[in-house]
This record gives sequence, C-alpha cells and structure tokens, in this order.
Amino acid sequence: MPASQSMGPQGRVTEVDIVVMAAPCAKEQARAGGIDGLVSLVAGDMERVNSFILSRTGSDVTLIPEVASHLISSGGKRLRPMLTLAFAQLSGYEGDGGIRLAASVEFMHTATLLHDDVVDESDMRRGKLAARMLWGNEASVLVGDFLLGQAFKMMVEVGSLAALEVLANAAAVIAEGEVWQLSAAKDLSTTEEAYLGVVQAKTAALFAAAAEVGPIIAGLGERERKAARTYGDSLGIAFQLIDDALDYGGAAELLGKNVGDDFREGKITLPIVLALRNADADERAFWTRTLEQGEIVDGDLEKAIGILRSHNTLEATVQQARRYGDSAIAALDAFPDGAMKDALVDTVAFCIARAY
Amino acid sequence: MPASQSMGPQGRVTEVDIVVMAAPCAKEQARAGGIDGLVSLVAGDMERVNSFILSRTGSDVTLIPEVASHLISSGGKRLRPMLTLAFAQLSGYEGDGGIRLAASVEFMHTATLLHDDVVDESDMRRGKLAARMLWGNEASVLVGDFLLGQAFKMMVEVGSLAALEVLANAAAVIAEGEVWQLSAAKDLSTTEEAYLGVVQAKTAALFAAAAEVGPIIAGLGERERKAARTYGDSLGIAFQLIDDALDYGGAAELLGKNVGDDFREGKITLPIVLALRNADADERAFWTRTLEQGEIVDGDLEKAIGILRSHNTLEATVQQARRYGDSAIAALDAFPDGAMKDALVDTVAFCIARAY
Repeated sequence: MPASQSMGPQGRVTEVDIVVMAAPCAKEQARAGGIDGLVSLVAGDMERVNSFILSRTGSDVTLIPEVASHLISSGGKRLRPMLTLAFAQLSGYEGDGGIRLAASVEFMHTATLLHDDVVDESDMRRGKLAARMLWGNEASVLVGDFLLGQAFKMMVEVGSLAALEVLANAAAVIAEGEVWQLSAAKDLSTTEEAYLGVVQAKTAALFAAAAEVGPIIAGLGERERKAARTYGDSLGIAFQLIDDALDYGGAAELLGKNVGDDFREGKITLPIVLALRNADADERAFWTRTLEQGEIVDGDLEKAIGILRSHNTLEATVQQARRYGDSAIAALDAFPDGAMKDALVDTVAFCIARAY
Repeated sequence: MPASQSMGPQGRVTEVDIVVMAAPCAKEQARAGGIDGLVSLVAGDMERVNSFILSRTGSDVTLIPEVASHLISSGGKRLRPMLTLAFAQLSGYEGDGGIRLAASVEFMHTATLLHDDVVDESDMRRGKLAARMLWGNEASVLVGDFLLGQAFKMMVEVGSLAALEVLANAAAVIAEGEVWQLSAAKDLSTTEEAYLGVVQAKTAALFAAAAEVGPIIAGLGERERKAARTYGDSLGIAFQLIDDALDYGGAAELLGKNVGDDFREGKITLPIVLALRNADADERAFWTRTLEQGEIVDGDLEKAIGILRSHNTLEATVQQARRYGDSAIAALDAFPDGAMKDALVDTVAFCIARAY
C-alpha cells in the first residue's frame, strides 16, 4: 500500500503513488526506450501524416480549422496513426496509402474525443479547456461529424475496400460501445465481462482497426491481419485499463487528466467493479450514494480512493492491463524480428508504465 | 396578400395561408399525383429497404434500436432513399446494391437529424418529442454516430468505390454546411449567395449524392451522373427553401413542424435575408434585437411574419424554390421518358406544393 498521499485544498489528489503498487515486470524493466523507438521509426511518415491532417482540416468555414487544430495540435501522442504506419512497415508495405489511412484513424479518434466531451460534459481535455467549453457543444458535435466525413473520404482515396470495411466497422462498434457505456453508467451491477466488452468496443476497436489496415494494404493474409488486430485490441484494452486506474490517482496530472472525472460521472470502471465484488454494507451504501445517485460531497473522492486501495483494485486493474499487454506482445510472433517489432514491444510497456 | 390570419393564445400562428401568395405554375397544375407515383414505383424496393433498416438498427445495446426506431418509424417520407431507388431504376440498374445504398442514405439523414436536434436544442421533430428530449443529448449524439458507422458499413458492402466517394464526400460537406450555418447564425450581414451555399451543403448535398449513386451503380457515365446530381441538388435546395418559408407559417402544423423555430434560433434564412435588403431603420432594429441579440418577447413572431409579408419575401422564397424545381426537371432530359421520369417531375411539384 502507498506510504504517502497528500490532498489538495479542494480535496483533489495532488500526489498519488500507484507507482509502488506493482513492481514493473522483467519485460518492462528490460525496455527503457518507451515509445521513442516507435516514434523514431515512423517519424518520416508521421511528418507526412501531420501535413496531410492539416491540409484536410482546412475549410472556408473558419470554425472548422479552429476547433480541429485546438485538439489535433494539443499534444496527443498520435498512438493510433503510429500503429497504422508501424504495421504497414512491419508488413513490408512501401506505398502511400498508409499515410492517408493513418490520418483517417487520427480523424476518427479526434471526432470521438469531440463527441465524448459533449456526452461526458467534460471541461478539460489533455490539460486544456475542452473544445466544447470554448466553442460550445454545437461546434463539437458538428466538427466531429466533419472530421468523420473527411476520414471516410481519405479512406476511399486509398481504394482498399478491405481497409474501408475494417475502419467502417470500427466506427460503428466504437459508437455502440459508447452507447453501451452510457446505458451502463451508474449501474452497480455491471460485471467485469460487460465492462471489458465496453472497453473493447469504445477504445480497443480503433486500436485494432488501426493496426489491421497495415497488413491489409500490404496485401498480407488472414494470419498477419489477425495478429495485428490482436495486438491493437490487447494494447487498446491495456491502455484503457491504465486510464481507469489513473482516474483515481497516479501520474494523472502529468498526463493532463483530471483525477476523479469517472467518479463524478458515475462511470463503473474496472477498479469499481472489482471493489463492489467484496464491498461490505457500508461501502455498498457509499457507492450507491455517489455513483448511482450522483450525490457527491467533499471528501468522497478521497474516500473512494481509500476503498479501492483497501481492496487492492487499482493494483488488480494494472495487473489485468499487464496481462493484455502480454497478449499484445505474443501476437507479434506472426511478424519478422527487427527494430519495428522491438519498438512495438516497448510501446506496450510504455502504455502500462503510464500508471507510474 | 393573405386575406385572413388568426393567432393562437400564445401568439402562435394557427392558420396561415401562403397558399394564396403564389398561384401554382402550369406544370404543377398538370400533375395531380404528387409523390404517389414515385412511392408506388419504388414500393417493392422500399419494403426491402425498410426491413434492411430495421435489421441494421438492431444491437444488444437496447438504447440504440429504441432511439433509432423512434426517429426511423416516425413517419418521415423517406424521400432521399426513394431518390436512390428511383435513379437506380431510371438508370436500368437491376442488382441489389441500390437497397443497401438507399438504407445508407436514410441512416446518414437520420444521424444528421439526431445531431441537428442537439445543435438546435429542438424540442420537437416530426410532430413528436425530439429523441434528445426522451433519451438526452448524449444518446442522440452517440446513436447518430452509430448510424453513420452503419451507413458506411452498408456502403462498403455494395463494393462501389465511386458510390462510396460520392457519399463520403456528402457526409463531409453536410457537416461543413452545418458548421457554416452555426457560424452564420445571428449574422444579419449574411448574403443570399452565402445562404444558398449553406443550403446546398447542409441539405442539397445528400439529395444530390442519393440521386447520383443510382447511375453510378448502374455503370452509366458522367452525363447521367451529372444529371442525377443536378436533379438532387436542385430538388434539395427547393425543398429547404420551402421549409424556410414554412417556418413562418403555411401548412407547417399539418407537417408536424413548429412555426417560428428558425426565428427563435436566430437563423438567417432566405425570407430574412431578402427582408433585410429593404429594411427601414425600425425593421432593422427589430431584426437586430430578435435575431442577433435573441431578445424575443410575445408578439415578435407575428410582427416578424408581418414584416416578411409586407416585403413579399415568403412569396419570393417560394418563387426561388420554384426556379430550382425547374432546373431539377430540366436535368431529367438525360434520362429516357417513362413512368419513372414522370414521377420524378411530380416529386418536384410535390416538394414545392408543401408550402400550400
């Protein structure tokens, strides 16, 4: 259990330390490179993706580039388009299609963020005011739609019906996952299985599609497609589970996240699902009042964190993420050894190490 | 000018009569069939489109079919998918692709309606409570995204990259038009040209795409594609201009519309643009207070209608719609004579006759 913890004046967690909860596994210790390997291997392509993104957010309607740039230039890691470029390279692809598909993937992701902020009524995104706070919900909804339309236009330009199928399917699955999450919000009977289903749909589906289109445009077969999909899917789930743990502390502030957003929105994430399983009557009453009924008073977030820690569920969530990370790494067996494969292994470790 | 007009207790227009403002042109008088011809010629295909639509709104996430059915079964005319089926038939197409494309077009339209209601904060849609009033803005945004994703999946299944290109382009243009409209809201300096640009994007682009995919899947060339696009584009503009006029009276209640929505939202539609052109100082002050500053008091809607009538701008808007209707009819020259072509001529008259 953590040794020290200090609360800010508004009861905000200002320093938390999931860091000591779970020692990094051997694989993670062996890889110090983090995401740098991936970044440097796709750097040339990413530059082209970035110019392409800029050129496709242009519009005579000035509100569009304003809103889009706010989010696109706000320092996201561009993990999803990097996956497309990485798996295209790993599959021996040498054409131009990967650039457009990577840009499409980033547009789909940005559209989702814009719509999510409206749905969650979030004030902040990546440490900046959310677009909806600056331009209103209307602009966030419509610019999201514009980016989605542009994404499909770019995919069509690549001319691969198989890639289009994978990405169109992801678009539908992501939205389905978001609606599912909305329906499950505040529902304390959500099971671990149901929760992982939501995560797979709303987060992992785009990671999986981003990776799978690499072997597709390279003309590889089902074995490599499936391996890429599994890598993306598992990495996406691991990524989201770490996010869930971060919402109750950890390095959240460094990452520009608000601690406690999920709690205030009544989201039943894995740390909560696991804590509910062993909750005594007092704890159940606490979760019912805060998450189900939305009656949150000063000190409740700290109490929630205390309960999660007493049941070790933040640690268990990180451990679960680690297991998905291991599946992601195992899936890479279908591809040839080399610098790119090493970089993709490091990327898994990087995603999990965000918790520290 | 109209002879009689009565106001409801809340100052709501309960009986208005744009009907006497402009006598139907000879072409409209000659065609008594309205939309019935089109409906009966595509009836068999539309039945398949409807089952297809139902099958594709299914989801384990029960909120999705609930929200989607609310809108899809709420008695829209299905004009856009009928255009796809009609132009596919008119182009001699005999395959199954038209069914899926027509369903895609209806999904795109439904997604737009769901998002529009959130953006406009509308309470009503087609005479029923808007989905957002029943399930919240969140569900409207996300179910709209789901339908858009499903639309692209269905398009991909048809396997025509050219049709995909046209529809993906329409998706981006529609959203761009909506953002444009948002930026131009409350802006009294909006020109007629700028306004028609918005209409072309937000409304006519989908009509144009819906029609154009017909000759595309039939394998016809640029001449027929362009003709179908022009028909859809012109019909769409005419349709929207009639809607704009209806917002200030006419047969609005019969059509399940609220009179005065555009006025209350500060939308600068064509009747307003034309009235501003010849506004005296008092009138300009009135429009500035109501549309630009959003300060609307009892009796303002009736005063607005009075001003529009004194400048004949509702009549001028209907006349403008009629001119677009004539271009739509002229574009049909590229296609062979027959029952379908007659039905498409009648459809133009029907769209304009909604004003009466």
